[in-house]
Amino acid sequence: MKRRSFLKQATAGVAATGGAVLASPVFAQDAPSISWRLASSFPTSADAIYNGSVNFAKHLAEATDGKFKISVHHAGEVVPALQVLDAVQNNTVQCGHSAAYYYYGKDPALSFDAAVPFGLNTRQYNAWMRSGNGLALTREVYKKFNIVNFPCGHTGTQMGGWFRKEINGVEDLKGLKMRCSAFAGAVLSRLGVIPQQVAGGDIYPSLEKGTIDAAEWIGPYDDEKLGFNKVAKYYYYPGWWEGGFQVSLYVNDGEYEKLPKHYQAAIMQASALATEEMIGTYDAKNPGALRRLIAGGGVLKRFPKSVLDASFAEATKIYEELSAKDPLFKKIHDDYMAFRNDVYPWFGVAEFSYDAFMLDALRNKK
Amino acid sequence: MKRRSFLKQATAGVAATGGAVLASPVFAQDAPSISWRLASSFPTSADAIYNGSVNFAKHLAEATDGKFKISVHHAGEVVPALQVLDAVQNNTVQCGHSAAYYYYGKDPALSFDAAVPFGLNTRQYNAWMRSGNGLALTREVYKKFNIVNFPCGHTGTQMGGWFRKEINGVEDLKGLKMRCSAFAGAVLSRLGVIPQQVAGGDIYPSLEKGTIDAAEWIGPYDDEKLGFNKVAKYYYYPGWWEGGFQVSLYVNDGEYEKLPKHYQAAIMQASALATEEMIGTYDAKNPGALRRLIAGGGVLKRFPKSVLDASFAEATKIYEELSAKDPLFKKIHDDYMAFRNDVYPWFGVAEFSYDAFMLDALRNKK
Repeated sequence: MKRRSFLKQATAGVAATGGAVLASPVFAQDAPSISWRLASSFPTSADAIYNGSVNFAKHLAEATDGKFKISVHHAGEVVPALQVLDAVQNNTVQCGHSAAYYYYGKDPALSFDAAVPFGLNTRQYNAWMRSGNGLALTREVYKKFNIVNFPCGHTGTQMGGWFRKEINGVEDLKGLKMRCSAFAGAVLSRLGVIPQQVAGGDIYPSLEKGTIDAAEWIGPYDDEKLGFNKVAKYYYYPGWWEGGFQVSLYVNDGEYEKLPKHYQAAIMQASALATEEMIGTYDAKNPGALRRLIAGGGVLKRFPKSVLDASFAEATKIYEELSAKDPLFKKIHDDYMAFRNDVYPWFGVAEFSYDAFMLDALRNKK
Repeated sequence: MKRRSFLKQATAGVAATGGAVLASPVFAQDAPSISWRLASSFPTSADAIYNGSVNFAKHLAEATDGKFKISVHHAGEVVPALQVLDAVQNNTVQCGHSAAYYYYGKDPALSFDAAVPFGLNTRQYNAWMRSGNGLALTREVYKKFNIVNFPCGHTGTQMGGWFRKEINGVEDLKGLKMRCSAFAGAVLSRLGVIPQQVAGGDIYPSLEKGTIDAAEWIGPYDDEKLGFNKVAKYYYYPGWWEGGFQVSLYVNDGEYEKLPKHYQAAIMQASALATEEMIGTYDAKNPGALRRLIAGGGVLKRFPKSVLDASFAEATKIYEELSAKDPLFKKIHDDYMAFRNDVYPWFGVAEFSYDAFMLDALRNKK
């Protein structure tokens, strides 16, 4: 779209000057040396997600012959984890690596760039962003924050988290103090959960002391490092608030516009490769971590259908309420959900039946 | 791996000369203008898969400021569809876009780069290639053909194809003349199927005349254009010979080595973006195509479990036979299957249960 309108403008210019400007480039097309800083919302200990930004910066430098360099700073090094959006908006750093739903309080519509309850799975997220209206629509929200966003990582469907007691029905959620993300908390609070804000490093002691009863983090690979199985043994799935979770690269729009076009293209391509590497890392590392967590006392449990059904119903109501309040939320929501409702039945055919057969065949093989 | 050994060599050189060579680059680090030709195995009519190469070339040109240009040639334009590997090997073209299992006759081990019966799904393929040993192992096979390969597209789980008659059990496969890929044919022939080689454009008339009884092509989006529902109405799933199907970029290794390092990096990144775009296109376009195919008389059918079980058992035997014949096949097979057996149980937890719930919830919503 942007490209087209640029071409249009260029053509208009040519017409006005009788073609004389054709030879002079509209943008500087050389390869300047550029150094940027990137603020990450993630600690180095969460290496799979943190390395999304490290890999992105490495690829970008390699593709630009070392000319476009980005130094990566972990959560808290330059700015606190949850202020990355602000830091990019204010140009404190030129770019950031973050999760859009951290900023649910600023604008719930941002969440569509990361994960929403009962939303798209990983493949569907990619399809909505690249072949649907996802990239254009999320950029419309980010424009308010002077940010140009790029998909830069996926975790896959996350786990529902660690619980000190079994959840056998909606009644077991009543009064439960649970560490969870904001949008999940909005849904769960309507079922009696008391959502808690607890930083990653404080989850373990809080569960141990019983200050909280449950906590969701990411999935086996990251959860294992924090040792949750030792203090809250029931490991529930699926994390229906993160059926697919997309991580984002944020670039300050003023800085982005100053870049030569080929550096802009290189950003998109470097982040695409970093995206594939991140989901590849999670998919390769989660299986072993899950086995070890179970061997270490974790008890794998599926959320009861009654809990999922009640959550789905409450999520639907929240979507309606947020849509009534904000036309842009409604616009993105309607497009996102239409895409979801269109794509899922197809996933139920070849993909799902293949996975179902394979799961069964490999289980019987053992 | 390559990078490391290069660094080692560089360091060795430095040691030998007392550090004096540090300032002089080992490789030319400028940005030369390069023009290559790419031969595709796909016709322009199969636009989702064909555009994988078009998008790749576009991204590469954009990231290199127009200096690295690749002209894309459809199947038959420069070389026939199934001779792309030979053309890249012989440097008739510098690169190609093809499917490794087309060359099953040359070397069955190549198939692990595209799809094998009861193999990895799309996400798992990405994980094996990027976080497992996939890229290194497939490159070991391609070395025999002077080719450096890059993942450059996915189709998702393919359909099982169009059948003139219902398949209710293994007995219905006896004597069935079916157009299918070579590895699928090797398995199916043990169950009585008579595999047929039929070019894409000839499938429709062959089904219409009854020269063949069944044919598999890709999935709804591509199948719809060929109108198979009008001549063989039963549309079976899943295509267990292509649970995940990876398309590849082939680069002649001599040409690749001549490139500056940043052009090499740009190739990997441009193909990663093209990969995400291709699977995004399929995931976005298959749903509507499937609906129209069904509205147009197609009858969706799941392969009976007895057929899948028998096929799984025969595939296992073929893997054993091929492994006994070729140590490299065995090496890749063992790694690939160990990865599959490790990763699938994890996919059965969060991913599969989330999709199962969503499929059910959206079905009931209607």
